[in-house]
Amino acid sequence: MCCSETHVRVRALTELALAALASMPLAAAPPLRGTGDLGIVIEREAGSVVLVETTGGTRLGRIEGLGDLSHASAVFSPDARYAFVFGRDGGLSKLDLLEARLVRRVVQAGNSIGGAISADGELIAVSNYEPGGVRVFDAATLEPIAELAADYGGAAERSRVVGLVDAPGRRFVFSLYEAGEIRVADFRDPMAPLVDRHPGIGRLPYDGMLLGNGRYYLAGLYGEDALALLDLWESRPAPRTVLAGYRRGAPPLPVYKMPHLEGCAVAGGYVFLPAVGEHAVLVADARTWREVARIPLGGQPVFAVARPDEREVWVNFALPQNDLVQVIDVARLEVSRELRPGRAILHLEFTPRAAAVWMSARDDDRVVIHDPATLERTGQIPVDSPSGIFFTARAHRIGM
Amino acid sequence: MCCSETHVRVRALTELALAALASMPLAAAPPLRGTGDLGIVIEREAGSVVLVETTGGTRLGRIEGLGDLSHASAVFSPDARYAFVFGRDGGLSKLDLLEARLVRRVVQAGNSIGGAISADGELIAVSNYEPGGVRVFDAATLEPIAELAADYGGAAERSRVVGLVDAPGRRFVFSLYEAGEIRVADFRDPMAPLVDRHPGIGRLPYDGMLLGNGRYYLAGLYGEDALALLDLWESRPAPRTVLAGYRRGAPPLPVYKMPHLEGCAVAGGYVFLPAVGEHAVLVADARTWREVARIPLGGQPVFAVARPDEREVWVNFALPQNDLVQVIDVARLEVSRELRPGRAILHLEFTPRAAAVWMSARDDDRVVIHDPATLERTGQIPVDSPSGIFFTARAHRIGM
Repeated sequence: MCCSETHVRVRALTELALAALASMPLAAAPPLRGTGDLGIVIEREAGSVVLVETTGGTRLGRIEGLGDLSHASAVFSPDARYAFVFGRDGGLSKLDLLEARLVRRVVQAGNSIGGAISADGELIAVSNYEPGGVRVFDAATLEPIAELAADYGGAAERSRVVGLVDAPGRRFVFSLYEAGEIRVADFRDPMAPLVDRHPGIGRLPYDGMLLGNGRYYLAGLYGEDALALLDLWESRPAPRTVLAGYRRGAPPLPVYKMPHLEGCAVAGGYVFLPAVGEHAVLVADARTWREVARIPLGGQPVFAVARPDEREVWVNFALPQNDLVQVIDVARLEVSRELRPGRAILHLEFTPRAAAVWMSARDDDRVVIHDPATLERTGQIPVDSPSGIFFTARAHRIGM
Repeated sequence: MCCSETHVRVRALTELALAALASMPLAAAPPLRGTGDLGIVIEREAGSVVLVETTGGTRLGRIEGLGDLSHASAVFSPDARYAFVFGRDGGLSKLDLLEARLVRRVVQAGNSIGGAISADGELIAVSNYEPGGVRVFDAATLEPIAELAADYGGAAERSRVVGLVDAPGRRFVFSLYEAGEIRVADFRDPMAPLVDRHPGIGRLPYDGMLLGNGRYYLAGLYGEDALALLDLWESRPAPRTVLAGYRRGAPPLPVYKMPHLEGCAVAGGYVFLPAVGEHAVLVADARTWREVARIPLGGQPVFAVARPDEREVWVNFALPQNDLVQVIDVARLEVSRELRPGRAILHLEFTPRAAAVWMSARDDDRVVIHDPATLERTGQIPVDSPSGIFFTARAHRIGM
């Protein structure tokens, strides 16, 4: 009896232990944590991203196998748990930031540039060069939902699509490069999207962005000395030409490299626009779209980024001044401060309430963290040839 | 031998089971989830909050024991995991939204009204009526760090403090009711805060708020027909009087209840200000601070809330029209739509990219969820006498 009783107890305890083990999380299960302070840094060469958190300024992990990440960009799910990374090779990757893993990757086109997520987090749209158009996916599964071919002119012609952004009301807005057209696609019914076409906006729109919390869609024109503007607040929006002659007869844009308009900043009621081919930033009134200033800079600007309180706009530069960052005082419309935080500063991102600014120093293989008030370095993180930096607070902004 | 061997095995298995149990999370351990879509709804009567998520529009739990939650407000940690709730009774409560529990509650004053969190998430400031001043706490522990007495005039006098907000650069801005003063406290060194005083702003500031992403601090004046404005972009900010005469000789504000200015909205370059004592909202140009319109409404407005894309401003009302919500078209500056979503609509909050609007219907004991585009109801959640609704996206906004 002693032994059989004991065996019963042994069995019961074994079952208890096994049950306990079965209900245990895996050894590597991540700890419970908030996701509001997470971010990713693109490692272009390696085709990977480094996962970071901004509260302590630390590196949490790396997620590999994302393909060609030149000009890669990212958007986030509304719960700030998942990142969607758009690669140059048509790859669309869904990352779980809590588990630091690649959930799924699909190669959805031959050549693509950027994408967007709908406000409800249900749809991912990607703008494609080849085949030219927009493909829309279920954000949960990455299964395809819809395709909008960028057909124009003759039926056989398809345009490259650029400057794709989300707009309120489950819409996506984008530009057709060859067609010279802006389109607004309403995905309230994702099976039957309604597309408004706005042709004749000017030649060769090369990029587009949403300004003013979703009111204005601004497209840069490769083939004209002007920009195209669409006011999405109008019930029947009609594109108009703004800032005509802003290049002041400068030579045509260099052909070897498509510029990007995403480097525009809005601050203090002004739009700050890197002046292509000039060592200057153009300042326009965000209400009238008239030029109000042209601020001389120490090089050819790449990104103009507003500090979240809009008191300053920070600018980085193309070679050979790509170790320089200049700070524009928005109240005085002049450069007030500058710093040289590292070699090849490719991108910068502020934490959402401007407690810190993170900058990619590609040729130093690190991201440096500075206090925007004092310009002092407060931290750094090793990253292999870092480029774009994306924090999850973007999940809550319109037109990313 | 059989039995002793068995006993050894029993002991080993018991230890295994206990070790497994010890390393197990509690049975109720929450699943891994993002925190970007979380929120809380205040249950004023019950002294509790209901925890919600906006992706699916569901209720996740309730956290009780928070004391007197009349006029309660909340701010969030930068990682969007913790909420800090400011009660009317001087209570400051820290909630863990992932574990749905009260982490700590301190009663830090006899009577208080609102508070703020620094951009780095390290400091919590509370504005107190009794004793009049600001107390600052370590956000991690809720241990006291500093106290700013609202002394003025004679050394023995202490003013009530209202309208406390965070500003960039680890500053807090607040108003002194009896003293008629705005103060800006710089907590770069939390042990030795620097306080700038701006006396003479006008009689009896009753509330204050930050506009324009942290540029303007606007204080409502109980004792004058005007508002006080401080431009924090200036190196030596000087308060000025704006919108003098905006009440058009209306009778003095009712004495029985302090109004609140937090109901102001900024959209499309305008400030929308509930006109106290009138059935109207006042519209001022956010650059010149001149009145540009006065929009007639169906009742006495309480909160004017901008849809995140600024295309509309939604307004709720005091009794007897407190079942009404009117929608102002910001482009046309007129009421375009209205709805009656329930009984006693006390508060409304948009999801950060305007996919949904949540409204507290106090006398229906529920929060209703509507599609802002179609006005259709898309969901509802049972809540006991709901009042304020606060989503974690606030963690990333300046001046909350």
